[in-house]
Amino acid sequence: MTGLVRQLPHPADFPAPPSVIHLARWKEADRAARPARLAVLRKRLSEAGLDAYFGVRPEHMRYLTGFVMDEGEDRVAGNSGRFLISGDEVVVLADSRYRLQAGSEAPGARIENVTYELAETWPALVKSLGARRIGVEASHVSQQLWVELVAAAPDVELVAVSGWVETARSIKEPAEIERIRAACAVADRALAAIVRRIKPGSKERALALALEWEMRTCGADGLAFGIACLAGPNAALPHGSPSGHEVRLGEALLFDFGALVDGYRSDMTRTLFVGEPSSRDVALYEIVAAAQAATIDLVEAAAAGTVPVPTGRAADAAARRVIEAAGYGDQFGHGTGHGIGLATHELPSLSRVAPEIPLPSPTVFSIEPGIYIDGETGIRIEDLVLFDAPNGTLERLTGFPRDLLIVGV
Amino acid sequence: MTGLVRQLPHPADFPAPPSVIHLARWKEADRAARPARLAVLRKRLSEAGLDAYFGVRPEHMRYLTGFVMDEGEDRVAGNSGRFLISGDEVVVLADSRYRLQAGSEAPGARIENVTYELAETWPALVKSLGARRIGVEASHVSQQLWVELVAAAPDVELVAVSGWVETARSIKEPAEIERIRAACAVADRALAAIVRRIKPGSKERALALALEWEMRTCGADGLAFGIACLAGPNAALPHGSPSGHEVRLGEALLFDFGALVDGYRSDMTRTLFVGEPSSRDVALYEIVAAAQAATIDLVEAAAAGTVPVPTGRAADAAARRVIEAAGYGDQFGHGTGHGIGLATHELPSLSRVAPEIPLPSPTVFSIEPGIYIDGETGIRIEDLVLFDAPNGTLERLTGFPRDLLIVGV
Repeated sequence: MTGLVRQLPHPADFPAPPSVIHLARWKEADRAARPARLAVLRKRLSEAGLDAYFGVRPEHMRYLTGFVMDEGEDRVAGNSGRFLISGDEVVVLADSRYRLQAGSEAPGARIENVTYELAETWPALVKSLGARRIGVEASHVSQQLWVELVAAAPDVELVAVSGWVETARSIKEPAEIERIRAACAVADRALAAIVRRIKPGSKERALALALEWEMRTCGADGLAFGIACLAGPNAALPHGSPSGHEVRLGEALLFDFGALVDGYRSDMTRTLFVGEPSSRDVALYEIVAAAQAATIDLVEAAAAGTVPVPTGRAADAAARRVIEAAGYGDQFGHGTGHGIGLATHELPSLSRVAPEIPLPSPTVFSIEPGIYIDGETGIRIEDLVLFDAPNGTLERLTGFPRDLLIVGV
Repeated sequence: MTGLVRQLPHPADFPAPPSVIHLARWKEADRAARPARLAVLRKRLSEAGLDAYFGVRPEHMRYLTGFVMDEGEDRVAGNSGRFLISGDEVVVLADSRYRLQAGSEAPGARIENVTYELAETWPALVKSLGARRIGVEASHVSQQLWVELVAAAPDVELVAVSGWVETARSIKEPAEIERIRAACAVADRALAAIVRRIKPGSKERALALALEWEMRTCGADGLAFGIACLAGPNAALPHGSPSGHEVRLGEALLFDFGALVDGYRSDMTRTLFVGEPSSRDVALYEIVAAAQAATIDLVEAAAAGTVPVPTGRAADAAARRVIEAAGYGDQFGHGTGHGIGLATHELPSLSRVAPEIPLPSPTVFSIEPGIYIDGETGIRIEDLVLFDAPNGTLERLTGFPRDLLIVGV
């Protein structure tokens, strides 16, 4: 059994959580970076002959304006946090609940009062910007709102735009990378802190909660997403939720989790084994590890300049070929990876349908092939890598060992 | 100081968390209720001359099909979980990650494979249902997807529909009320468990985490929403987030929080005082308490049949009048309340712009007036009530005392 190690990592093997000094530096870095972020968007506006950009996604709001809305807050915020960017102004919409916060977090913006009926104030708003043609995040603005805005200001043309801010965000600034790296370390430490507590009979839900508690009391502002902790046959559900299931000897135990640090996220999957795995599970683990290594090798070679920078589709194919060759192509239904940053899933995409353009740089994405046998078992190994072709580097940001680990014995 | 009590509640003052017996009963109740829920929707489809309903909201999916997606999971799920309901079929879309789970949770549904490109399979999908006119949740379907679907099947008419499932969901079934009641009790117990730990110098963030931990280890599946724990001037931010701020003697300490129990939510705000409050804060507290009592009195009288059932607008006005009369109308910017259930904010709405129709029955909503003095203090008192006019009852579901409580001394 190659790669099998029984030496479990310790929290102290990984970097310490960020301090208030880091937080202050990142805040300043965001402030300093915002004019350049706005300039990229304004250049696209100008090229497309548009007067303004209407955005609704919380991660874009934070990136472009500085106003931060907590996870899920946008669901109850109505139109608060939505924003308009023209050639020379940034306008953040906020109702009375958010006015003070928006003013303090987005000092460069004009804060405009808004109700749940945006259409009522829309004509005055677009007039105040002198905007006649407005690019709109059509993938996130509802059909209903679109129709209401068109009716409210029929002389203002709405133009669906897509991917502008996403594309800009896929290229990471140094302080963005620092935060993803910090989130990875928080997650590494947390799994290392709980790994000795896993025993046969441990419940998925209790382990997930213990892992969450470790992250949130040791450096994370929250979770990047709900923790998957899935044992045995449950691990065949690539996005299942932890249940009351008690892990049994010999079962795979899959953790898919990430930390949130100052808005930035990590994402890592480790499939541990509680006691000796079956030879079938070991074989699956080795196939998945080889598949992951194939994509890592490809992007590493691209970073070193020995092969061209691959597309997300080619990076996916490298892992997929290994799994297909082993006869499990149908048991690997999802993509090989995704970008990560202010959102858990963002550009670039590593999948069978990813666009045929080379990966950006510097960028951070996951590499996470898996094999899922319905009703039996599931294996996935996921790491985040920092890909920087101009700098010639490929760095793994998730530090927890990838070797097959046996726990609970 | 009327209403001032120093006797702090104990967790055991409130009902115990739900057991597996409750969970099994609720699961069965949902299964039994689903045909009637579908019948309500199908009646509306038929009345509107539509062949099918296309839904995208996770709470509607759960309500109508049984497929449960965890909080936030819909952000990474692509088109999985979206659904179509025709006169005789329920179709749930799921990619490989969700296929097994959807099949198990929505046994009455046809599970159809979907990718991130719904438009590719849309023509075959609507054809399999024989649907030519489809009602679409236009408030939650993006403009981009709408345009793609129209282009993919130009002979199929999409009709924007709004509020159909929301209106049905505003009338609560007995097993839905049981779960909201259970979520309220979990929250009551949790606040009672931590209230003695509050001291001058306690940090907002640490108190919020302690409260969350209590809920999640004592009956909650999760949070209804991110906890607000705001001290002193921070309490003036009606939707602020807990910070590193240390609560000081004499400050108001506002907790706005709720538990999630089997998909249903609670919501409660308590403004405690750490040490003796200022006479100004006591006066504000009494105004807010009187405002809340005014709305409660109104809906209580309506339930008893002594006054007509009010509209959400009239129920809001009852509280608002009290605050306006005290001279703080401009410091109460939000609505008086909102329905709650599978979503934290749902129908009915109690606000200045709520529709002029009587409140439904039986229904559950919050009553939560507040006064916010920028940079100084904020007071809000929020309870959930079960309003059931046919049954002649108005019941407060949140049990934690509403009297002015002094802690930390």
